[in-house]
Amino acid sequence: MVQYPTPISKLIEGFMKLPGIGPKTASRLAFYVLDMKEDDVLDFAKSLVNAKRDLTYCSVCHHITDVDPCQICEDTSRDRSSVCVVQDSKDVMAMEKMREYSGLYHVLHGAISPMDGIGPEDIKIPELIQRLQNDEIQEVIIATNPTIEGEATAMYISRLVKPTGITVTRLAHGLPIGGDLEYADEVTLSKAIEGRREL
Amino acid sequence: MVQYPTPISKLIEGFMKLPGIGPKTASRLAFYVLDMKEDDVLDFAKSLVNAKRDLTYCSVCHHITDVDPCQICEDTSRDRSSVCVVQDSKDVMAMEKMREYSGLYHVLHGAISPMDGIGPEDIKIPELIQRLQNDEIQEVIIATNPTIEGEATAMYISRLVKPTGITVTRLAHGLPIGGDLEYADEVTLSKAIEGRREL
Repeated sequence: MVQYPTPISKLIEGFMKLPGIGPKTASRLAFYVLDMKEDDVLDFAKSLVNAKRDLTYCSVCHHITDVDPCQICEDTSRDRSSVCVVQDSKDVMAMEKMREYSGLYHVLHGAISPMDGIGPEDIKIPELIQRLQNDEIQEVIIATNPTIEGEATAMYISRLVKPTGITVTRLAHGLPIGGDLEYADEVTLSKAIEGRREL
Repeated sequence: MVQYPTPISKLIEGFMKLPGIGPKTASRLAFYVLDMKEDDVLDFAKSLVNAKRDLTYCSVCHHITDVDPCQICEDTSRDRSSVCVVQDSKDVMAMEKMREYSGLYHVLHGAISPMDGIGPEDIKIPELIQRLQNDEIQEVIIATNPTIEGEATAMYISRLVKPTGITVTRLAHGLPIGGDLEYADEVTLSKAIEGRREL
């Protein structure tokens, strides 16, 4: 069988290493690249290398950044008394899009998951505890995902932090806005009932 | 609003230029790249640049290649009396996977589409006609897509080539193997009836 010329089969292999991209999509993307302007391809290749080389994790909050400490940690206009704990750098961006939270962050880079052999020491929990001792933090808002692992992580952190006298809160669970009661799963619905508030 | 650090937002923009990749997927891919090994990222970046730089189109059949003329055109074991006309380099690979065809190819790079302003001169039809005059070709197998544009292109080529005495054939239309009669559209079904063969 005649194969694709080497440069293109290498490119297809490269695309296939990315998540959610199978052989068909990879070859579609590779052929698309061949039709792109050379400058655009060079820019894209450079951005890959630069992102990998220039980005690092903030030594304070572990959010992804190109300067250390990161912009958020260095921003003096932010409320330094609260820390929002999230699983992922992408979650920081989701919180920032909301524009209502002006405190600091702590990125765990994962959640406790005994099934996958991920314990508290494997994510940035020790760094969080360390940070709480030094800083003027009064509230820890736990914004891990509403999954089994996220909940377990929230419980674990809350047990560690509560004895220090710092307030620990968790994002509310309930019906998503714009959602439909009919399509809500039972767990969400029971959380929504449990967390009901007087009008 | 705090944006992503520049290197990552550039990378996200790069991914978003690819077809079928929106902002969500682009940011997922970009974050995945950050977690990849540096060598893998460098290899991928290089393969992008190499594919763009080293690949060209075969001057004979216009298939994508890294040597000119391409491997297929240079392969002396192939049957040089027939040419299979396809719309795209990917179609050559599909034909080759079948392992039953051992003739040559001609890649049109598109199909006639008056709606999009694509005429016969905009795709490699003049080059095909030219090639038929010089070569020992006895059969032209038209394997353009079974779409309106593909059919129009097939008709156009057949009218041009037939007067030269070269046999012109078209791939059969009918029910796909493994398909279900129930789900076949009317046009396919009518083509299947039209092309029925005695058993």
